[in-house]
Amino acid sequence: MPAYATNMRFKFPIVALTLEIITIILFAVFAVYDDGKGHGHDSHSNDTHHEEPPMKLYPMFQDVHVMIFIGFGFLMTFLKRYGFSSVGVNLLLAAFGLQWGLLMQGIWHLDNGKIKVNIFKMINADFSTATVLISFGAVLGKTSPVQLLIMTILEITIFSINEHLVASTLKASDVGASMIIHAYGAYFGLAVARVLYRPGLRDGHDNEGSVYHSDLFAMIGTVFLWMFWPSFNSAIAETPETQLNAVINTYLSLAACVLSAYAISSLVEHKGKLDMVGQLFPLIFTVTLFQEFKTKTNGFTVVFVPLCSIGTHSERTLAGGVAVGTCADMNIEPFGAMVIGFVAGIISTLGFKYLTPILASNLGIQDTCGVHNLHGMPGILGGLAGIVAVALGKKEGGEAAMQAAALASSLGFALVGGAVTGLIMKLPFWGQPPDQNCFDDSIYWEVPEEEDENEESLAHADHSKNKAEA
Amino acid sequence: MPAYATNMRFKFPIVALTLEIITIILFAVFAVYDDGKGHGHDSHSNDTHHEEPPMKLYPMFQDVHVMIFIGFGFLMTFLKRYGFSSVGVNLLLAAFGLQWGLLMQGIWHLDNGKIKVNIFKMINADFSTATVLISFGAVLGKTSPVQLLIMTILEITIFSINEHLVASTLKASDVGASMIIHAYGAYFGLAVARVLYRPGLRDGHDNEGSVYHSDLFAMIGTVFLWMFWPSFNSAIAETPETQLNAVINTYLSLAACVLSAYAISSLVEHKGKLDMVGQLFPLIFTVTLFQEFKTKTNGFTVVFVPLCSIGTHSERTLAGGVAVGTCADMNIEPFGAMVIGFVAGIISTLGFKYLTPILASNLGIQDTCGVHNLHGMPGILGGLAGIVAVALGKKEGGEAAMQAAALASSLGFALVGGAVTGLIMKLPFWGQPPDQNCFDDSIYWEVPEEEDENEESLAHADHSKNKAEA
Amino acid sequence: MPAYATNMRFKFPIVALTLEIITIILFAVFAVYDDGKGHGHDSHSNDTHHEEPPMKLYPMFQDVHVMIFIGFGFLMTFLKRYGFSSVGVNLLLAAFGLQWGLLMQGIWHLDNGKIKVNIFKMINADFSTATVLISFGAVLGKTSPVQLLIMTILEITIFSINEHLVASTLKASDVGASMIIHAYGAYFGLAVARVLYRPGLRDGHDNEGSVYHSDLFAMIGTVFLWMFWPSFNSAIAETPETQLNAVINTYLSLAACVLSAYAISSLVEHKGKLDMVGQLFPLIFTVTLFQEFKTKTNGFTVVFVPLCSIGTHSERTLAGGVAVGTCADMNIEPFGAMVIGFVAGIISTLGFKYLTPILASNLGIQDTCGVHNLHGMPGILGGLAGIVAVALGKKEGGEAAMQAAALASSLGFALVGGAVTGLIMKLPFWGQPPDQNCFDDSIYWEVPEEEDENEESLAHADHSKNKAEA
Repeated sequence: MPAYATNMRFKFPIVALTLEIITIILFAVFAVYDDGKGHGHDSHSNDTHHEEPPMKLYPMFQDVHVMIFIGFGFLMTFLKRYGFSSVGVNLLLAAFGLQWGLLMQGIWHLDNGKIKVNIFKMINADFSTATVLISFGAVLGKTSPVQLLIMTILEITIFSINEHLVASTLKASDVGASMIIHAYGAYFGLAVARVLYRPGLRDGHDNEGSVYHSDLFAMIGTVFLWMFWPSFNSAIAETPETQLNAVINTYLSLAACVLSAYAISSLVEHKGKLDMVGQLFPLIFTVTLFQEFKTKTNGFTVVFVPLCSIGTHSERTLAGGVAVGTCADMNIEPFGAMVIGFVAGIISTLGFKYLTPILASNLGIQDTCGVHNLHGMPGILGGLAGIVAVALGKKEGGEAAMQAAALASSLGFALVGGAVTGLIMKLPFWGQPPDQNCFDDSIYWEVPEEEDENEESLAHADHSKNKAEA
Repeated sequence: MPAYATNMRFKFPIVALTLEIITIILFAVFAVYDDGKGHGHDSHSNDTHHEEPPMKLYPMFQDVHVMIFIGFGFLMTFLKRYGFSSVGVNLLLAAFGLQWGLLMQGIWHLDNGKIKVNIFKMINADFSTATVLISFGAVLGKTSPVQLLIMTILEITIFSINEHLVASTLKASDVGASMIIHAYGAYFGLAVARVLYRPGLRDGHDNEGSVYHSDLFAMIGTVFLWMFWPSFNSAIAETPETQLNAVINTYLSLAACVLSAYAISSLVEHKGKLDMVGQLFPLIFTVTLFQEFKTKTNGFTVVFVPLCSIGTHSERTLAGGVAVGTCADMNIEPFGAMVIGFVAGIISTLGFKYLTPILASNLGIQDTCGVHNLHGMPGILGGLAGIVAVALGKKEGGEAAMQAAALASSLGFALVGGAVTGLIMKLPFWGQPPDQNCFDDSIYWEVPEEEDENEESLAHADHSKNKAEA
Repeated sequence: MPAYATNMRFKFPIVALTLEIITIILFAVFAVYDDGKGHGHDSHSNDTHHEEPPMKLYPMFQDVHVMIFIGFGFLMTFLKRYGFSSVGVNLLLAAFGLQWGLLMQGIWHLDNGKIKVNIFKMINADFSTATVLISFGAVLGKTSPVQLLIMTILEITIFSINEHLVASTLKASDVGASMIIHAYGAYFGLAVARVLYRPGLRDGHDNEGSVYHSDLFAMIGTVFLWMFWPSFNSAIAETPETQLNAVINTYLSLAACVLSAYAISSLVEHKGKLDMVGQLFPLIFTVTLFQEFKTKTNGFTVVFVPLCSIGTHSERTLAGGVAVGTCADMNIEPFGAMVIGFVAGIISTLGFKYLTPILASNLGIQDTCGVHNLHGMPGILGGLAGIVAVALGKKEGGEAAMQAAALASSLGFALVGGAVTGLIMKLPFWGQPPDQNCFDDSIYWEVPEEEDENEESLAHADHSKNKAEA
């Protein structure tokens, strides 16, 4: 049985400062500016980038940067009492992760013993943090910052091994990283969540809900991810022409995904509370993530049922971006990209409806943000689409077997790596929060007492009103 | 009399899936990647773009993309109970619209029977959706997603006809699309709103209000539109030099517009509720859109009066971007752009104050977001400024008569097209929401019960539920 | 004693319209488009830019633009009742400031008597507004829009003198403007705040708090600033290579700063209210700005203590961007940048904890947003780092003495200019708000009555509380 703890007054500073100081020392030893004279052993074989203007990729980098910090950060703000942690811990993990990712990815491509930092490597560093942020979604609300820093180190280290294997050894294609980021990050997180299974949360938690405005904050994250996904999938393409293809494919896949995700959501959702109101016979655009817990438990009160609605619903419009990742730069033609997005929207939506409850009840995988539906299955779909596309000759020099091996490798590293990481995170030292403090900012942050959605504050409100009247 | 309905369980998925499948088939037949070897019959005569690096316009495209999905989406979140629909339906319409726009604009410029997709065409596709999103503002809260999908198809189809006429036949100049997007979108939407006139909403609606944080969400949309407007007006300029001019003109016009809009708002506003508070003698920065309903009805309770304040107020700072659109790439000199923005800010603000109530009471045009003030009048102002600028020789080879014809054409297509579209949207099948469900997310979305403004509003909820049950 | 006033019905429009009309006339006389044929006397010696494509810097400009309007605007929305003013007045000041900045910076570099407007000059104009927005943070909630417009004129005028002195006379290096923007803006604002000292606010103010969602809005501003800071520090670098270095240095400095700021926050914070709750033994990520007032006064009720938490806490993750500004384009090596960011995070955090209360109680400087900790001290640190880096030969041709002179000049102009400006702002005419109306949007904006945190709703709240107790 793990020891729970909430007091991190010394643990967190010690861990954070130690990690940062070690990182700075490693940078002092290994990192230099790229002077443009290197040999270009970058992953994804982008030797061509080295003769280009040093700032050429900078706008792409900033789009990816927005996805990492605004997109992922605000995507997870749907929980009514966990918004500070979603954005704030996202910032912490990504800020540390990008430094660690620069090192871990850099050591595979040393140039005279040095890591030559450039925009291309910074994009890849941002990418490596995406795996952590996806996994963060699976364990959101149930882990401490110290646990998550440990996860960051391990997940990025293992990621960089798998990435090197896929790109340099297998020479598989995965420009938009359906396999090495999305599938990897999702199954890594699910493995961690399985190891950290909390029976006490089987029947849900009071704070596992959303409020109206928390869902709107989540939409900020969703829409920024949706808009900039073409940059994510094309940033490290090898030529301007394949980059254009990747942009077009992702743009169209995402657009088609919106239609299918909305349509299927509307079709499969039961009417939830809206039946009760009587006069409302809604087109229910949306499923609710935690609704599933209700289905499962039969005892969850209706008040907390329709949660996370727009957040998770709109998330699934992103599945098209995930699924088209691997073959984004291939000649799959615009309609091919749209078919992939269309299918991804359907799969993702059905997953939220039918698969998440099964995972939770039968397999003990409590997936807070439904990353399996958004990143996991669409990631595998992307990997499979890549195998098919390569087999059909849509990528010069590609080999379907290598694509399949890359998918298998990504899943294998994810599941084994995630399980081991979960076990390490379970060590008592790291201060896992007890069940009753899950999904609650106030365990780690100073939360203003006078809150919008806070019953406790009502007494104060009363008080100040009386004062005003006096 | 139209049949009202709220149950869209089958209608919406059938319509959405059918439209998407048809679209994918059309893409399979017509759309290919641009290989850079085309003949370049693009609208706006941008043959030059074809020899340029394929990704050159990509940063511009992403700015426009942010305006479409964040800008327009969040601009409309000011309604206290309609934020999900504003952002979510905006995403739906724009995602479908950009696909449809690529097809509709593409068929005028086929190259060997194919539409060659590139960044330039993607920008134009995003542009075409802007017309729909402007019209959406006029009917916000009073139409179903199915109705709006129908509007999207018709409005973009008619837009592409008018755009072709203006650009290729009349050879008029409208780089920032004051006429073909803003005036067109606004009057199209107003015509639709006229046809869909709801006498039952003459006295306002309980949900037609804003709350403090919904206005702040609207500011996100406003500010992103404001910032990226220079990209909107310059994205498809023909040369880097005219592109620079368009950026400078728009930047300065917007800046001047802020000052005049704020100043005039402060001058013309009556003091509203603030008088009651006694000690507050405010500089009222802002008018309130729905306030106008009060002026009109004399019976609207003061509680729901001061709505949409910052949202609509700050919207008018955008009028400068609209009005300078047509002549953004002309040599009107920086101060000329500032004068246009300055005048646009005044006109837009006075429109909110004096014209919107007249439109609503005398003409039966219920313009939820005041698009007439933000896009309609500034769009016409932009068209007129273009006529004058061309007449003064500020654009090489331009003809003032052709500019005037372009403005007339845009308005004509808008009014006729909008009226016909409104009649089609009025067909009972599409499920127009009944009056009492207007401006309410919960008709289409699963809305969390525990809301911000609502420990308090629970009583209301209770109340309205009782009403519903009664 | 200053005369207080809240009625700005005529003052504000007269001042705003007069300023804008004068500005337009000055633009008519001086401003023309840059035709690329100028002599290039721009500050920061960027002659090279003139032969480059006119739109080359545009993506950088837009990043800076987002920082100015979204970043600074939303950074200050943490106050529960001052969000409209934060974003709206930020827009007003920046919109006017960028016009004034174009003129003031332009007159030092006339080309045949004309200011040739281009993207580079627009970036510098945006930069000049940043000084005003930093100072705005120090006096947030305590000044009227008219006062702030006066401050904008004076601060930008003085800024452009100091900038010219630093760049052209002293030829000091300050690419990311640690000294001429951050230190200058902070100490200018602090001097103004000192002159406008309000004894009546010594014990805090009811509205000086945040609510849960206002802190999340502030995170939007914080994260956009954090992400785009590399653009801020590199936008006007002289060569692509130094631009790359500036990006890398800023990116790494910011990342390191996150870790140290979070760690030190966690270490130094007392447990505040969380102790009271009993079961929560938090890792307190955050200090609270206004908490300090409590420490000072010993009489401030606990209800209003834990404010501004995430806002101010996360702000300090930005200190790394400020501090690395001056030497961002120097060869300080990646780890050097990280050390600077690491130290800046510590200094900024300790400043919030220990220095802000001293400033307020002993020196009478009421610094609403803690700009001293975010911009002041990190700015000086940046200036000192620049002196050291130049002394160590990290910048070709640099002279440490000139760097020191630049820092002294920036501080001197800030303190003297701020004091004089404060005295002018204190003139009765400008309508300083009385103490009881500070930090309150409703003095200047129509605020919706049905608000999140609204007293009327308390009755309802009461109701649900009773229900909860039952």
